Amino acid sequence: MTAEILTIGDEILIGQIVNTNAAWIGQQLTLAGVEVIRHTAVGDGHAAILEALVMAQSRAGLVLITGGLGPTRDDITKKALCDHFGTGLVFHQPTFDQISERFLKRGIPLNRLNRDQALVPASCTVLANALGTAPGMWFEKEGVVFVSLPGVPFEMEGLMIREVLPRLATTGMTGAIWHRTVLTQGIPESVLAEKLEAWEIALPSHISLAYLPSPMAVRLRLTARGNDRELLRQEVDNQIASLKPLIGESIYGYDGDTMAGAIGRLLLPGGHTLAVAESCTGGYVSHLITLTPGCSAWYRGGVTAYSNELKTALLGVSPNTLEHHGAVSRETALEMARGARKHTGADFTLATTGIAGPDGGSPEKPVGTVWIAATGPAKFFCEKYVFGNDRERNILRASQTSLQLLRKLILEEKNG
Amino acid sequence: MTAEILTIGDEILIGQIVNTNAAWIGQQLTLAGVEVIRHTAVGDGHAAILEALVMAQSRAGLVLITGGLGPTRDDITKKALCDHFGTGLVFHQPTFDQISERFLKRGIPLNRLNRDQALVPASCTVLANALGTAPGMWFEKEGVVFVSLPGVPFEMEGLMIREVLPRLATTGMTGAIWHRTVLTQGIPESVLAEKLEAWEIALPSHISLAYLPSPMAVRLRLTARGNDRELLRQEVDNQIASLKPLIGESIYGYDGDTMAGAIGRLLLPGGHTLAVAESCTGGYVSHLITLTPGCSAWYRGGVTAYSNELKTALLGVSPNTLEHHGAVSRETALEMARGARKHTGADFTLATTGIAGPDGGSPEKPVGTVWIAATGPAKFFCEKYVFGNDRERNILRASQTSLQLLRKLILEEKNG
Repeated sequence: MTAEILTIGDEILIGQIVNTNAAWIGQQLTLAGVEVIRHTAVGDGHAAILEALVMAQSRAGLVLITGGLGPTRDDITKKALCDHFGTGLVFHQPTFDQISERFLKRGIPLNRLNRDQALVPASCTVLANALGTAPGMWFEKEGVVFVSLPGVPFEMEGLMIREVLPRLATTGMTGAIWHRTVLTQGIPESVLAEKLEAWEIALPSHISLAYLPSPMAVRLRLTARGNDRELLRQEVDNQIASLKPLIGESIYGYDGDTMAGAIGRLLLPGGHTLAVAESCTGGYVSHLITLTPGCSAWYRGGVTAYSNELKTALLGVSPNTLEHHGAVSRETALEMARGARKHTGADFTLATTGIAGPDGGSPEKPVGTVWIAATGPAKFFCEKYVFGNDRERNILRASQTSLQLLRKLILEEKNG
Repeated sequence: MTAEILTIGDEILIGQIVNTNAAWIGQQLTLAGVEVIRHTAVGDGHAAILEALVMAQSRAGLVLITGGLGPTRDDITKKALCDHFGTGLVFHQPTFDQISERFLKRGIPLNRLNRDQALVPASCTVLANALGTAPGMWFEKEGVVFVSLPGVPFEMEGLMIREVLPRLATTGMTGAIWHRTVLTQGIPESVLAEKLEAWEIALPSHISLAYLPSPMAVRLRLTARGNDRELLRQEVDNQIASLKPLIGESIYGYDGDTMAGAIGRLLLPGGHTLAVAESCTGGYVSHLITLTPGCSAWYRGGVTAYSNELKTALLGVSPNTLEHHGAVSRETALEMARGARKHTGADFTLATTGIAGPDGGSPEKPVGTVWIAATGPAKFFCEKYVFGNDRERNILRASQTSLQLLRKLILEEKNG
């Protein structure tokens, strides 16, 4: 089955919010073996929504719609759905009861706008929303299934998981598809492509390869299509096995793996631990690490020493070092990393100090200058990087780079 | 002028990456006074790309295309562009020279794939890409402008800022539009809508209001359309001035403001400082704070005490408290916040301790349980929250909630 994801809302068009709903739905449908062929986003206008419904009807077997179902007056999705399906709004008592109960629990009086949320197109099957007030709606027209869901991400996700995906599974219309993505780091895309050319040409026609570059990594996505998902999974695994000898240690993980997760897998078997000392990255390295479930087995914690006083008080950086070399220097980075070892007892430590911007740069140390130190039981690295002018990107890149440097250090220590 | 944003790549459709490019372009075009009427995402297939180009041609005055221009063989955008514009590929020497220079600098040998990147449709104007190897391309057909840009975000952004936006400004076809978004917290959407009903009805017809809810806040976006941007700005400001008496202190900022930024604006005038002690939030509170430019004037830093040992060693939490009340308790949260005061000298502190999941829950303290403490010179808050089962969302919600609690405390201290 093919699917189109239709997102409704001016806030998407003007970029006020990023369309994470479409990405999440795309993931879920793909996992369910549905082939997503298009994402469309239109604004809160009746004509645009109606035209998008008509076009989607002509292209896809399933149309997933999100947004435009809130209690406020900017919402016109329901009216457009009524027009597309040639029906009218009716009052739905179970939805009204559920809304009433939610408000009663929270001690907020119900008003007319909430009452209007219980109006639904007569021809739809209502999908109860356990996490909010706007219900989901399931329609069928000329063999195409339309599902309309609220735009608040966790309400939409709840409805997808509890109502939509189970119903789709019962249709029996889904083909088999299998994706696996190899995460690599350290080899530029074009060099990787040359190394893999013969391997890629030898891929069977039902398995395709795509390169997904980003500033910090190149991801290789293998997609297999057929009828037997288990067989596809096996075929993809075999192809990856023949890929490994070609690009060796540049592979740090698969699919949703992260660099922090890869580090955890290296530390855990030997019972090694990690701590961090951050200045310019402001806690983001620690955040990337603690996104990893189970990290408390190998991550002890860290210090965000944003002021010089805290670098001295919590990490033991010498005031002399700060005065003579500055907070952004090789010496300070190393003393931070070594101070973190001393104060936390961790086997490996990371430290970052730099100028994230937009202010604080100088001709010798421009905005984007970052020193990163990594220490282990036997070795250490301390490197200088110069990123760009954007504060947020500098924080992200310095954080990701620090984890890469740490992975390299752990591998070197392991390999003697 | 109206615009459609067309994103090309299977990785978008299957949700492997979130379409941040479309959001960023939407923002930039909106600021430039271009009305974005649609986002479309299609896969790496010739027929789908060509059909999307034809449809966009029929709808919009400007079509912004990203993706599908890398050096590897999954890229077929250029072929589809050639077919749409009835032209063929030609070798573009200046692009080739620039690619060669980039590779020379990095010491990587140039290969055939890189050479192919210098092939461009004959009818386009080439836009030099200073940040990568795939050039941008500008086409015109039957009064519609098409711009094709690479999909790597920072390359696309560089080309937009340096090449595309300046060229669009010279066309003189852009109307005036002004957006301003009021950020509120603490009043549910439907209650807010009732409070503002009379004010909303009195809005002139060229100014529209949209409610943008999210789990942590409700944003009110005002959009004014006309010819004179400065006049629109003034009108929107006047409307916001008449909004303030209605919803008072629930407004914490405007447009891209953050809760951390709002806190900084409250702390800075009195010379007050902040420090944090994090457990379950793992550094994310500190990250949200340090995304704020200039925060070093009021943020001292923090401790991520992920292990109990570090809670004692770096924050002075009593081992007795940890043993009798547990790490996730009111007592531990308060000792963490007070320890952070003592060890950093900050005027205000925040502490979080909880169970982010997926493991570690118990019947009395299920996954999602978080204690948050905030202390100030005269007062303190310590509150328990129970979020959900998702680790990442628990981290984000606990972090955002902690900043809200801190803002409430600072306001209470200020108001005596």
